[in-house]
Amino acid sequence: MPKKYIDLETLKYLLYDIHKIEDVLKRERFQEHDLESLNMFIDSVKEFSDRELYPYFKEMDETPAYHKDGTVIVHKQVKTVMQKSGEMGIISASFDYKDGGLQIPFSVVQAAFYIMDAANNNLPGYPGLTSGSAELIIEFGTKELNQTFVPNMLSGTWGGTMCLTEPQAGSSLSDIVTKATPTEDGFYKISGQKIFISGGDHQFAENIVHLVLARIEGAPKGTKGISLFVVPKNRPTSDGTLEYNDVMTVADFQKMGQRGYCTTHLGFGDSDDCRGWLVGEEHKGLKQMFLMMNGARIGVGRGAAAIAMAAYRASLQYANERPQGRKLTSTGKKDPSEKQSLIIEHPDVRRMLLLQKSIVEGSLSLVILASKYHDISTTSTSKEEKEKYNLLLEMILPIVKTYPSEAGAEAVDNGLQVLGGYGFCTDFSLQQYYRDIRIFALYEGTTGIQSQDLLGRKVPMQNGKALELLAAEIMQTIMKASKDDVLKEYAAILGDKLKLSQKVLGHLMPFAMKGNYERYLADANLFMEYLSIVVLGWLWLEMAVDAKVALSKSDKKYSEIFYESKIHTMKFYFKYEVPKTNSLAASLMSDEVVTIKKDKEYII
Amino acid sequence: MPKKYIDLETLKYLLYDIHKIEDVLKRERFQEHDLESLNMFIDSVKEFSDRELYPYFKEMDETPAYHKDGTVIVHKQVKTVMQKSGEMGIISASFDYKDGGLQIPFSVVQAAFYIMDAANNNLPGYPGLTSGSAELIIEFGTKELNQTFVPNMLSGTWGGTMCLTEPQAGSSLSDIVTKATPTEDGFYKISGQKIFISGGDHQFAENIVHLVLARIEGAPKGTKGISLFVVPKNRPTSDGTLEYNDVMTVADFQKMGQRGYCTTHLGFGDSDDCRGWLVGEEHKGLKQMFLMMNGARIGVGRGAAAIAMAAYRASLQYANERPQGRKLTSTGKKDPSEKQSLIIEHPDVRRMLLLQKSIVEGSLSLVILASKYHDISTTSTSKEEKEKYNLLLEMILPIVKTYPSEAGAEAVDNGLQVLGGYGFCTDFSLQQYYRDIRIFALYEGTTGIQSQDLLGRKVPMQNGKALELLAAEIMQTIMKASKDDVLKEYAAILGDKLKLSQKVLGHLMPFAMKGNYERYLADANLFMEYLSIVVLGWLWLEMAVDAKVALSKSDKKYSEIFYESKIHTMKFYFKYEVPKTNSLAASLMSDEVVTIKKDKEYII
Repeated sequence: MPKKYIDLETLKYLLYDIHKIEDVLKRERFQEHDLESLNMFIDSVKEFSDRELYPYFKEMDETPAYHKDGTVIVHKQVKTVMQKSGEMGIISASFDYKDGGLQIPFSVVQAAFYIMDAANNNLPGYPGLTSGSAELIIEFGTKELNQTFVPNMLSGTWGGTMCLTEPQAGSSLSDIVTKATPTEDGFYKISGQKIFISGGDHQFAENIVHLVLARIEGAPKGTKGISLFVVPKNRPTSDGTLEYNDVMTVADFQKMGQRGYCTTHLGFGDSDDCRGWLVGEEHKGLKQMFLMMNGARIGVGRGAAAIAMAAYRASLQYANERPQGRKLTSTGKKDPSEKQSLIIEHPDVRRMLLLQKSIVEGSLSLVILASKYHDISTTSTSKEEKEKYNLLLEMILPIVKTYPSEAGAEAVDNGLQVLGGYGFCTDFSLQQYYRDIRIFALYEGTTGIQSQDLLGRKVPMQNGKALELLAAEIMQTIMKASKDDVLKEYAAILGDKLKLSQKVLGHLMPFAMKGNYERYLADANLFMEYLSIVVLGWLWLEMAVDAKVALSKSDKKYSEIFYESKIHTMKFYFKYEVPKTNSLAASLMSDEVVTIKKDKEYII
Repeated sequence: MPKKYIDLETLKYLLYDIHKIEDVLKRERFQEHDLESLNMFIDSVKEFSDRELYPYFKEMDETPAYHKDGTVIVHKQVKTVMQKSGEMGIISASFDYKDGGLQIPFSVVQAAFYIMDAANNNLPGYPGLTSGSAELIIEFGTKELNQTFVPNMLSGTWGGTMCLTEPQAGSSLSDIVTKATPTEDGFYKISGQKIFISGGDHQFAENIVHLVLARIEGAPKGTKGISLFVVPKNRPTSDGTLEYNDVMTVADFQKMGQRGYCTTHLGFGDSDDCRGWLVGEEHKGLKQMFLMMNGARIGVGRGAAAIAMAAYRASLQYANERPQGRKLTSTGKKDPSEKQSLIIEHPDVRRMLLLQKSIVEGSLSLVILASKYHDISTTSTSKEEKEKYNLLLEMILPIVKTYPSEAGAEAVDNGLQVLGGYGFCTDFSLQQYYRDIRIFALYEGTTGIQSQDLLGRKVPMQNGKALELLAAEIMQTIMKASKDDVLKEYAAILGDKLKLSQKVLGHLMPFAMKGNYERYLADANLFMEYLSIVVLGWLWLEMAVDAKVALSKSDKKYSEIFYESKIHTMKFYFKYEVPKTNSLAASLMSDEVVTIKKDKEYII
């Protein structure tokens, strides 16, 4: 196995130097932490990942989770990781002290999970979803619900899940039909089917606590009639024992990747004895769930970014060790009597490595940025600041979920290609990363859905205020870079692309104004790609600005080559990726309409 | 399983109407064939594929070939398909009558293999490689070698392979070290290791005939010292029995995809008793092998195109059956009381389907075009014509190998996305196509190597004559399209892109002239992408021209909607794919150099 699955130095550089998490630490909520204690937390998670996650990466792929006798059999590390995640406070790290948490900034918790994702993406979902569902109970549930369920979840004894998808509805949550019938005993009777439930059941969990979206009888149609329930697999009784709650593990889904992370099909109330407890208000379930979905979507981007990181490290190591071929001489031929080159010396291999580096580190920067926005908006005492960072977060969220998933898959694809035929063989990890990362463009709202969200909801939000705020942030970096002799060229390019995005929106907006939303949103995916490149170009330029400053100082925190590699990768991004905005803009502003269904069917 | 794995109508349309294979039939070699007999051949292969290949597609993935007791255990259909391919004349279809062949045009044989590839890409490689290696023996071997080996290969009793790659050399064939020591008995003693040998051994083959590249003792260094040998696993003795020839199946490679198509590691001469017979001239092995590699590279493009076709059909069927979500109303919201839409009605899903259709049918057109060039150049009696079509073939060959492999993988990726979460599950075929197609960008020279070939060898060939010929072919279509009121707009765009390609080359050529080949070729991959889009744009425009003519006639061979879908898909290609040439040109003409190794290492 490759020696390094992560570049910890870059992670810390992005966290501390670029996104300056210490600013966040000044807030009251985090006053008991300092950089040193956070660093210790991160290092302990790294050490834990080295020991308990990474060594089982291949094994968990080769012995996938499977359904047997009404439960799912998972790898033994699921037990270890759940237990340790409880002990180490990973599950509850960002929670309030009063709820058993450590009040660690969300961004630092994301960094910790990123390390675990990179080490073995089959595992972090188990504690991660447990954390997310516990958070829902804490945030919206009654004190009683909290006391009944949360402590066992935070200790890693009980698992937690989110149950949204149903067979007939898929991504269309307005079509959810799982039924909740009120009883006079304070609980609801739940009946229905949920599919694609990650971590939905396994032999090591004493209990699994499902957070289920369902419709109370008589509720309004559509998404406004959906409520949220806690539905445990086993319900605690008054004497402290557990009693089966009629939640059946009907089947599991065998997948192309993430084979050690189980995906289940659950049946609720087949014997009419499944009890659920309402969380928060009636009919507000989706809204509540979506508060958590923001975190979940950052988590998806984070996972994809981490897999792409691990794949990059593996292909970089290979390129540095594998001799093959020779440098071209000035006659355009190769001299067979010369020594073979390492493949990292071939320009095309370098291109594939730099493409990976630009996507991988750019994605990580994006994930940390979003997490920082989250930290600021949730801890701010100023209403204005809260709103600003909330809008910024809302704005970039679909990109945070999508860019690492889509570009990350491309990065891994290039990593695989670096290994040649070996990349396709199961003896090497690249093919596993290639399979694993493919689910991220599907998880928690596909790329299509995220793109509709970006262009359909986030751009028009508050009359474009969120986008304006984002543009202002980007402009700040452009201004800084404009003052540097080398960087001003790139600053100008980025400024142009930002302007061009306005032109693209100027072309599209009239369709929305005229009520032709289908046309407005038809190419939302392309707009997603466009804006993602601008945002990534911004994040790279920001890194280059910082690196330039650092290089001019005699006292450097990191090596010269570390900083120079950041500037170099920024240049790569501007040469190879940023120009793609041209063709995207051309397609977006084309008057040709070919994807909207007309009377005739052209797709045969 | 999806009902249709191929659109046979489009295959025949491309073969007969667009590429007019009947023109080829006029040649003397094919005089005993007519369209009807060729159609019967194609239909019989389709029927055979329906019955013997497609039903085992999933099963062969789930029970991969594996190494055991010195051989490889493969699925039982390998036996059936080899046997039937012999009986039906598929292995020898394009060969001379005198060599036991049917003298069927190469293009029609490719169409037949395309159907088999689409049905189950684990299987056609076995007869395909057997055919390729038999062809080498026929073309360059002695009469005795031919009589000893070829009949059993053409009947499907013995398999055949090509053994190029060695562990220490990879794609760099000049580093081959497998040794051939002459003996006084007319044979050579062979010793060495070969890896990634497809179809290298299995329990059903009475014998496997390996075509091995090796170096005769004292041969010049590099590719000019490589010779070609027939090295059977078992050597025929004078009494007609077989005797073990010291060819050991050391191991196999377990792969992410094409798991039913075995890939082996062979050891030759471990006990110093491995005999090989020289094929053709000493030291000319690579040149001879490459005559066959042209066919093999068309075959790789064909296989990828076929997998993308099958994936497209599967995702199209799903999109036509799966209800989910609703059309946006004029308020930009959805009305949950409305009936659910089929997902094919959503613009974004249509975009993904049309992208697939444009890549899939465009790739198929490209494969048939190359095969037709091959047919003309090999059967022409005019030296000039022969040279012209040979140059055209050489020119597009790297594109034929690469575009279907790279864009095909993107098409399958979109097909998977159409299915949402189900696309990632093993119950659906998309994930298998996704895994299978990934090897095609690695087979028979990676995309990087093909791109170097395109820009480094094919473009400068005969002072740019091959490229000129290609441009002239493209111009003919542009001229035709310019006369049509609707198509002239697209003709103009394609003309511009063709001109822009000259500008790009004008920017790059001086580097080659000055002997800076590393710089000249550094972005060869981008040039490959550029020229591929131009070629595909051309092929789509040609289809649109034909469809427009057909639509104006009262007597139509295919339905109106069939022709209209071709024009529609051309428009799609010009809206979404052709603009990518802009950004590629910008990157290609950028003065920023970031992928050529300098004194400092920026990739860390």
